[in-house]
Amino acid sequence: MTERKQFRDLATPSELRLAIEALDIGAGTESVELLDADGRVAAERVDAAIDVPGFDRSTMDGYAVQATDTFDASEGDPLVADLAGAVDAGERPETDVSAGTVVSVATGAPLSQGADAVVPVERTTRRATDDSTVVEIRTAVAPGDNVMHSGDDVAAGDRAVGPGTVLTTRDVGLLAALGVETVPVVEPPSVGIVSTGNELVRPGEPLEAERGQIYDLNTYALAAAVRAAGGRPEVVPHIADDYEKMHETLQSVGERCELVLSSGSTSASDTDVLYRVVDDHGSLDLHGVAVKPGRPTIVGEIADTPYVGLPGNPVSALSIFRTFVAPAIREAAGRPPESAPTLAGEMVASKRYTEGRTYLLPVAVIEDEAGDVLVYPVDKGSGAITSLTEADGVVEMAPETELLDRGESVTVELFSAETRPPSILAIGEPDPLLSRLLDRLDGPRYLPHGSAEGRRRLRDGVPDFALLDEDDADAADGDTLATYTREWGLIVPAGNPNDVSELTDLFEVEGFYNLPQSSALRSTLDDALSEIAAESGVSGRDLADQIHGYDRTVSGIRSPARRVADGSATVGLGLRFAETVLDVDFVPIGTQRLSVVAAPDRLGKSGMRTLQSVLERELDSVADSTPGYATDGVL
Amino acid sequence: MTERKQFRDLATPSELRLAIEALDIGAGTESVELLDADGRVAAERVDAAIDVPGFDRSTMDGYAVQATDTFDASEGDPLVADLAGAVDAGERPETDVSAGTVVSVATGAPLSQGADAVVPVERTTRRATDDSTVVEIRTAVAPGDNVMHSGDDVAAGDRAVGPGTVLTTRDVGLLAALGVETVPVVEPPSVGIVSTGNELVRPGEPLEAERGQIYDLNTYALAAAVRAAGGRPEVVPHIADDYEKMHETLQSVGERCELVLSSGSTSASDTDVLYRVVDDHGSLDLHGVAVKPGRPTIVGEIADTPYVGLPGNPVSALSIFRTFVAPAIREAAGRPPESAPTLAGEMVASKRYTEGRTYLLPVAVIEDEAGDVLVYPVDKGSGAITSLTEADGVVEMAPETELLDRGESVTVELFSAETRPPSILAIGEPDPLLSRLLDRLDGPRYLPHGSAEGRRRLRDGVPDFALLDEDDADAADGDTLATYTREWGLIVPAGNPNDVSELTDLFEVEGFYNLPQSSALRSTLDDALSEIAAESGVSGRDLADQIHGYDRTVSGIRSPARRVADGSATVGLGLRFAETVLDVDFVPIGTQRLSVVAAPDRLGKSGMRTLQSVLERELDSVADSTPGYATDGVL
Repeated sequence: MTERKQFRDLATPSELRLAIEALDIGAGTESVELLDADGRVAAERVDAAIDVPGFDRSTMDGYAVQATDTFDASEGDPLVADLAGAVDAGERPETDVSAGTVVSVATGAPLSQGADAVVPVERTTRRATDDSTVVEIRTAVAPGDNVMHSGDDVAAGDRAVGPGTVLTTRDVGLLAALGVETVPVVEPPSVGIVSTGNELVRPGEPLEAERGQIYDLNTYALAAAVRAAGGRPEVVPHIADDYEKMHETLQSVGERCELVLSSGSTSASDTDVLYRVVDDHGSLDLHGVAVKPGRPTIVGEIADTPYVGLPGNPVSALSIFRTFVAPAIREAAGRPPESAPTLAGEMVASKRYTEGRTYLLPVAVIEDEAGDVLVYPVDKGSGAITSLTEADGVVEMAPETELLDRGESVTVELFSAETRPPSILAIGEPDPLLSRLLDRLDGPRYLPHGSAEGRRRLRDGVPDFALLDEDDADAADGDTLATYTREWGLIVPAGNPNDVSELTDLFEVEGFYNLPQSSALRSTLDDALSEIAAESGVSGRDLADQIHGYDRTVSGIRSPARRVADGSATVGLGLRFAETVLDVDFVPIGTQRLSVVAAPDRLGKSGMRTLQSVLERELDSVADSTPGYATDGVL
Repeated sequence: MTERKQFRDLATPSELRLAIEALDIGAGTESVELLDADGRVAAERVDAAIDVPGFDRSTMDGYAVQATDTFDASEGDPLVADLAGAVDAGERPETDVSAGTVVSVATGAPLSQGADAVVPVERTTRRATDDSTVVEIRTAVAPGDNVMHSGDDVAAGDRAVGPGTVLTTRDVGLLAALGVETVPVVEPPSVGIVSTGNELVRPGEPLEAERGQIYDLNTYALAAAVRAAGGRPEVVPHIADDYEKMHETLQSVGERCELVLSSGSTSASDTDVLYRVVDDHGSLDLHGVAVKPGRPTIVGEIADTPYVGLPGNPVSALSIFRTFVAPAIREAAGRPPESAPTLAGEMVASKRYTEGRTYLLPVAVIEDEAGDVLVYPVDKGSGAITSLTEADGVVEMAPETELLDRGESVTVELFSAETRPPSILAIGEPDPLLSRLLDRLDGPRYLPHGSAEGRRRLRDGVPDFALLDEDDADAADGDTLATYTREWGLIVPAGNPNDVSELTDLFEVEGFYNLPQSSALRSTLDDALSEIAAESGVSGRDLADQIHGYDRTVSGIRSPARRVADGSATVGLGLRFAETVLDVDFVPIGTQRLSVVAAPDRLGKSGMRTLQSVLERELDSVADSTPGYATDGVL
């Protein structure tokens, strides 16, 4: 690794926008079958080639008449006319209508020659006489009554759809009525997507974590984002940071696509060769932008094709794509700008930022009981993909804004028009039983950040409920909706080769894996050690120091157990539940009570009412069927 | 045609809703590649199978250290450590870190054994000595600083996506990061679409209008609507009203689809056999509903498959589909209810309806200068497909509501979430030049209902502008934005076989086609005749009566010319413009002035500002290049 050059003159966000707008992303035209045309963009104006209807048609079931015949007809003094024939929809009228005769006509059928109006069947009576059938007409009609004339609906030559129309069900219906079989539509611009990085592996292939490999997220997320913007993604097998290979790949993608997108390798360092390839073989219009996240963005051309180099960091890449690149693809695809998917809300937590760049702060939203939107920052650093999944959109902080304060009104730019606030937001102790219960709700969000964090955020008014341990539940200011007990202990390899049976056995074995201090399960272990320590007159910390690996922590509630299962640990802290999903044994040590504690001012929310009924109806049975859980304290 | 049975007990709209909800529309599960998963619905919960990151990774470019080493380091008194190696992203650390040594590490690279923190490169200096390289560390770091531990972002076992999640870019990104290659998703329920009617012809096939044939609109519009609701349409070649064929078709569609939809043939008459087929071979749960449009709706089963029979009338069929059937398909497809695509607005015209059914009144919307939504009924009868294309949604009038008054506040249920008010709404004289100009605007709506109607609606405050003839423009209360002249006359077959050269020649030929009285061009012809009549001391009407076909009108501005072109007329009223699009000759008679008259309180709208700039910049040149037009009166 070498020193990096600094970006000396960072472009402003609006300069970046202009540079991308100046790229000329092309898009062709193609012809699609009408059945496949919905959602596509009309490439040109389509005019009606025929009249609709193509004939004078009856709009009622009734009798085609000469209107003048009926002028004196009334309930008391009906006109009696001869029935000269009948026409159904799709039939050619075989009989003309003249004075004194009528022809029966169905809705949608053509009017007979000579007729100029239709009398509704309800105002008539049909009678058979000896040698013919007559119809009594009990109302007068005017010429044109209950008739739609040829071309009245759409006249040939009328504009049916304008250029640039996004074709909906209605347009498809209209075009069908006009007999249009294929429609000229805008071809989605093809967008080549190139991810760079020696560490990337395609999903589905084996991963060597010890070599620092990670799965390639950007290619897949960008492909989905390109499609959502109206483009046609073309995914290129990802390439290593090799100058020649990168040049070859970019050149060939540039030659066959309308836009080249890359992610990664965009800093001006020796190892990031992409920058140099574009500089040497294409043109570099802009490099570096004063926006967080997303500083190392490149705009230029390669193979005479527009090129945008996105940062390798997924959050940065998607943030820059969404804010600056997606609008340009939409425009090339002939689609209107995305209709302001924004939400107005109020910050329930503050955020300070003083680096003097525009900050596209990732935030998440939740509704309070009144349906008002509360906004909190999701601030895990742009290296975390959960910044992406736990956030709903961004709030733009201008360079001169240093503090976004609690209570401030903000506008959230949502990640997509489909983004909705979760039905319920909960924060607290990670727990498999709660996770199972939440599967019964539509669109919940659970942040397993630990019991202490749950209590803190509950106090700040962020979540609808928190899952807390006994101490936190006692101290929390909320309504306890349910309480249950889970069994915790030590996870050992199947067969328990080291014969671990109680906590003090931890002093004898190497290779323990613990949970981090944010975990309430870890606190329970600390407490248990302190009890043992008190009996021997030492501190809990002293005892802990005698356990090899006590400070070696892994994040997930199941992570130590997984280390045991894969052989990288000999014993780990965990729940009995681990036995059911991993090939390990469980040594019970104690139980822990957890409580679902709700914010009192959110109980009226529909999501919370559903939660309450799920807890009432299903908690007992789900706990019964989940090993290591009880609602009555009996395990 | 025979008498029709009346529906004796019409179901209420909520009974219809319940009957459709009670249908059990199935949907299977399928597995899709992650690249194709966006927009699909997760069929089951997907948990993380791996930790992300899968190793302790550096979040900065810098040096991996033992934090305890740095505790005394400062700007003034840096720690000087030996550089023992370097690790880039995707590389396996080959060198351990011990006290006094550091390893260079890139963002995203794994931490070396022994290291527990990273010092950012900005707080270091690298120096070469005689036999090695040393690094000056000018800051203290704590254990864990600038390190993301294995599983910190996502821990194996964490829930990645819940069942029923509509997969977005973010979910696809998360699943990619977890190495997921294929995703279990809900299979869209297959919906068989059967249109019935002897009069129907497929788009692309020749139409015999004289036999009363029309193109099959319903199949295509319903297919698009089914897809928009998350279903997979299966279109069945349309079938004639034949009992055996219909039974065979419905049976086989029912056997292979999850829902059968038909349109047409649903009344309880002898000719509408569909009703009898379902009654005889399936089950009929509901027949007839007290809603306008859409009364003859059927709900039942055929081949043990849910069946909904929609009315044949397109507006009725699509209205019932949208309101009652689409939500059931969405649910079967695992999609959340469409998020209330509604608009609050104010009626600018009144509507009376007294038949005592629920009326789903088609309406259109337009924004005023302040962005407030104005609503007007689109009331062309459900036989008109332009009821569909000129409307944006419906306002539900309860059975007891007889009058929706001007000024009343209403909620418009939009036809789709993508529906937007048009950028501009104009009503008035049909005119090819204006039509060309409107192609230069995004999303305009033009209703070619004639000059008189344009003036009337402008007075009522409906359109943004009207295209009016001289008399209407003088009488209108608006701002004239532009005026131009068009040349009108008589359209004759190519070569002018009857040698028509002036109006009075009309007395000599048979087979004239006129425009309707709503047309300003027709008024101009009436006026010209009156002038000739005045010279001879008779009335214009008397002269008109001497013209064969004077009262035979066709709707579109180009329709008489089309009759001439196809040989069904010998002479027609029209514009010189007709010469350019049809194989006809033009006999000039006079000129007509048209004015673009704007509502003064709409001039500030963005669409109207665009119109003004289009008129200023392009009217002259477009008029110059369009035969029969002038902006200076000189033709």
